[in-house]
Amino acid sequence: MLAEIITIGDELLIGQVTDTNSVFIAKALNKIGVSVYQITSIQDDKKHILKALKEAQENADIIILTGGLGPTKDDITKKTIAEYFGDTLVRDASVLKNIEHLWEQYIKQPLAQVNKDQALVPSKCMVLMNKLGSAPGMWIEKNNKVFVSLPGVPFEMKALIENEVIPKLKDTFNCPFILHKTLLVYGVGESSLAARIESWEDALPNYIKLAYLPNLGKVRLRLSAKGFDKDIIENEVDQQIEKLLPLIKDEFFGFEDDDDSIEVVIGKQLVKLKQTLAVAESCTGGKIAQQITSNAGSSAYFKGGLVTYATQSKTDVLGVSKGIIDTHSVVSAQVAESMAKNALQLFNTDYAIATTGNAGPEKGDSDAEVGTVFIAIATKTDVFSEVFNMGNHRVKVVNKAVNKAFEMLQKEILKNR
Amino acid sequence: MLAEIITIGDELLIGQVTDTNSVFIAKALNKIGVSVYQITSIQDDKKHILKALKEAQENADIIILTGGLGPTKDDITKKTIAEYFGDTLVRDASVLKNIEHLWEQYIKQPLAQVNKDQALVPSKCMVLMNKLGSAPGMWIEKNNKVFVSLPGVPFEMKALIENEVIPKLKDTFNCPFILHKTLLVYGVGESSLAARIESWEDALPNYIKLAYLPNLGKVRLRLSAKGFDKDIIENEVDQQIEKLLPLIKDEFFGFEDDDDSIEVVIGKQLVKLKQTLAVAESCTGGKIAQQITSNAGSSAYFKGGLVTYATQSKTDVLGVSKGIIDTHSVVSAQVAESMAKNALQLFNTDYAIATTGNAGPEKGDSDAEVGTVFIAIATKTDVFSEVFNMGNHRVKVVNKAVNKAFEMLQKEILKNR
Repeated sequence: MLAEIITIGDELLIGQVTDTNSVFIAKALNKIGVSVYQITSIQDDKKHILKALKEAQENADIIILTGGLGPTKDDITKKTIAEYFGDTLVRDASVLKNIEHLWEQYIKQPLAQVNKDQALVPSKCMVLMNKLGSAPGMWIEKNNKVFVSLPGVPFEMKALIENEVIPKLKDTFNCPFILHKTLLVYGVGESSLAARIESWEDALPNYIKLAYLPNLGKVRLRLSAKGFDKDIIENEVDQQIEKLLPLIKDEFFGFEDDDDSIEVVIGKQLVKLKQTLAVAESCTGGKIAQQITSNAGSSAYFKGGLVTYATQSKTDVLGVSKGIIDTHSVVSAQVAESMAKNALQLFNTDYAIATTGNAGPEKGDSDAEVGTVFIAIATKTDVFSEVFNMGNHRVKVVNKAVNKAFEMLQKEILKNR
Repeated sequence: MLAEIITIGDELLIGQVTDTNSVFIAKALNKIGVSVYQITSIQDDKKHILKALKEAQENADIIILTGGLGPTKDDITKKTIAEYFGDTLVRDASVLKNIEHLWEQYIKQPLAQVNKDQALVPSKCMVLMNKLGSAPGMWIEKNNKVFVSLPGVPFEMKALIENEVIPKLKDTFNCPFILHKTLLVYGVGESSLAARIESWEDALPNYIKLAYLPNLGKVRLRLSAKGFDKDIIENEVDQQIEKLLPLIKDEFFGFEDDDDSIEVVIGKQLVKLKQTLAVAESCTGGKIAQQITSNAGSSAYFKGGLVTYATQSKTDVLGVSKGIIDTHSVVSAQVAESMAKNALQLFNTDYAIATTGNAGPEKGDSDAEVGTVFIAIATKTDVFSEVFNMGNHRVKVVNKAVNKAFEMLQKEILKNR
C-alpha cells in the first residue's frame, strides 16, 4: 500500500515555513503499514495542483493533501479538487454549523462571506469534520484510490489524521503489520559500523530493511519489517537483533522509544535511581542544560548548571583554582575535572558533567586547537575526563560535545547500576 | 528562473527526520531571485531518483538534490546520477585528499574502502569541495540546466550552498538584483501591525513585496525588491522605509542583517560599548545562555550564567535569600530581581538577565499558573522585572520567555546608550 503526501503553499517554497505536516503524516501512515512513496511540496496554483494530483495517482493508492483550504484568495485547492473529479462545490450544512459555532464561541465577530464559503465542499466527498477550525477535511474515493484533503494548520491536520483518516484507512484497506525497531549506537562512525556488521546485514531476510541514521557521534540503526503475520515478524526481528547485539556490544545504548533522545533515556534512569545531575559548561555554552530542561519532568533530577564562559568565571563562580588553570591551561583535563567536581559539590548532586574547549572559529583564552574539547564526569566517588577533537565547525563542535557528554554520562550510569 | 529541490532518503518518508534542508535551500535561492517550483522528497531508490530527475528537468532550470551520498549501502544517488547522464564514476584526486585529511585529523582510524569510494564522482561533473565531510558536492550542466547534488548532512549542505552553489548560480545565470531589508519589530502582534501600516502597505510599488514573519512575540517585516537597476531599487526601498518608520516608532528594534537574531544585535552593541552580560535562568533552563553562546565572538561580552533549576540551587548557588522565596514564592518578581542582581555581582558584569517561571506541563515548586514567567534585568544601578503569561505549551513558553528577555535587555541597552 503506497501513499503520496502533497503539501500546498507558497510559504513552503520560499523557505519561510518548514513542512512539519508531512513528517507527522508519514509517521502515522508508516505505523499502519502504509509506505510513503513521495512527499511533494507545491505552489498554491491550479495547474500545479492538477499536475501533482495526476502524478500522485499514477504511483500511490492513497493521496493526502494538506494546505490551501484557508478563506483567503490565494487558496484555491478546493475548487481545483472539484475540477479534478469533474465535481461541483455544494454547501455542507454540518460544516456551516461547525463554523457558526466556532465564530460564536471564539471569534465573537460577524461571520464573513469568505468564512461561510468554507462550508463549500465537492458534492461527492465525505466530510471529515474539523472541530478545531473552519476548513473541513475531505475524503474522496475514485478507482480504488483514496484522496484526502486536509487543512494546513498543524494541530487541525493532526487531529483529523488521528481521529478520522487513520481509522478510515484501516477500515478501507487490508493494512499489513509493520514493525520498526531502532537501536541507539554511540561512539562508532557510520562507515566503521557498516563494515563491522556487514555480513550480518547481508544475511538479513529481504522483508527486513536496515537504515543507518547518523547524527554527530551517534548512529541510529533502524530495522523495519513488514508482513501479514505479526508473530513471525516480531520473532524474526528479535532473532536478528540477538545476532546483532554481540557485534556492537560496547556501543549499544539501548532501544529508542520512537522519539526518545539520549537525554530522555538518562532522565528516566535518574528518576528510577532517585539520582541527580548538575552541569558546568564552558564551550557548550548552556546547551547541555538546555537539552536536559527541554524535557518536562527534568526538575526531578536536574538541579542546575553553570555556564562559565569566561576564564574568570571559572575561578570566581565555580571555584576552579587559578593555579590549575595557569599550570595546565583553561582547556585541559585538570580544569574539566575540577569544574565537574566543583559543580557536583555546589549543586550537591550524584553526577556532574563539565565541558571546556574551544569551539572556534578562533582560539580563545587558551592555546588549544579549535575543536579541542575536554569532557569530565564527576560522581560522589570519582572524576574522569576524555579529550576529543571535534572538528572545525563551531555548531558541530558544540553538538558533538553535547552528544559525547551524554554518552559518557550514560555509560557511567549503566556502570553504576 | 525556476528551481526544483529533491531531497533523498527513506528516513524522510517514514517521518523520522524533518526535511529542513529544502527550507534552507529555498530561502537561499529566493534571495538571489530564483523561485522554487517544487520540493520533492523521494526514496533512496534508483528508479525513483531517475524518475524525479526527469520530471524536475521538465519544470526547472536548476535542480538541487540533497542526500544519498553517504558511504553505506542504502546510498545509491551517485551511481544513479552517473547513469542519468550516461556517465561513469571516476576517482577525484582532490576529494580523496580531502577525505584522507579528514581521517588523519579527526577520525584517526584506517580509511576504509567505502570511504575511499566517496571520492568517486561522475567524470563530467565539477566537484564542489566539502571541507566538512567526506561526501563531495557535484555540479553538472546539461542542455542549459544545472544539476547540483549535495550531501544530506545539514551543516555540510549549508556550507556548500553558501560558499559554492549560490556564487556559481549567480555567475551562471543572469540573476536580477534582489534587495531584502528586514525590520525587527517587537511588542505588537501581526494583525495589529498589519492594520496599523495598511495604507502604507497598499501604496507600495508593485516590485516591492512585503512579508510578515511572525515568531512568538516578534514580527520581522521583510521588504523585498527585485530589478536590474541596483540604484533605483535601493533608493526606492530606503524611501519606503522612511515612510514606514514613524508608524512603528516604539516597536522598531533595528534592521536585521540577513539572519541576525536579536541576540546577535545585542552582542554587537555590547562589544561596541565594551559592556558585559551574565544570566541566571530557571524556567528557560539554559536556553538564553545557549542562544548567546551559539554566536562566535560571544566570549567578548558574555561572562557566564547560572541555571538554577531547583529552588535549592537558587539559594545555595545563587544566594537568593530563603526569606524572599518563602515570602513571595519562588516564581515572583522579587526572586527574579534577586537572581538578576546576584548574577550581576557574581559574574561582575554590566547587565544580567534572570528568569523564573513555570513552563509546565505541571505546576512545579510554586503555585504559579503554568505559563507564568517573571523576567528581570539588572544593571549596575538598577533592577526591574516584568511578569508574563506565556500560554500552556512548554516549548512555546520557553521560547517566548527567551525572546522577551532579549527584548527587555535590548530596550535597556538602547536607553543607556
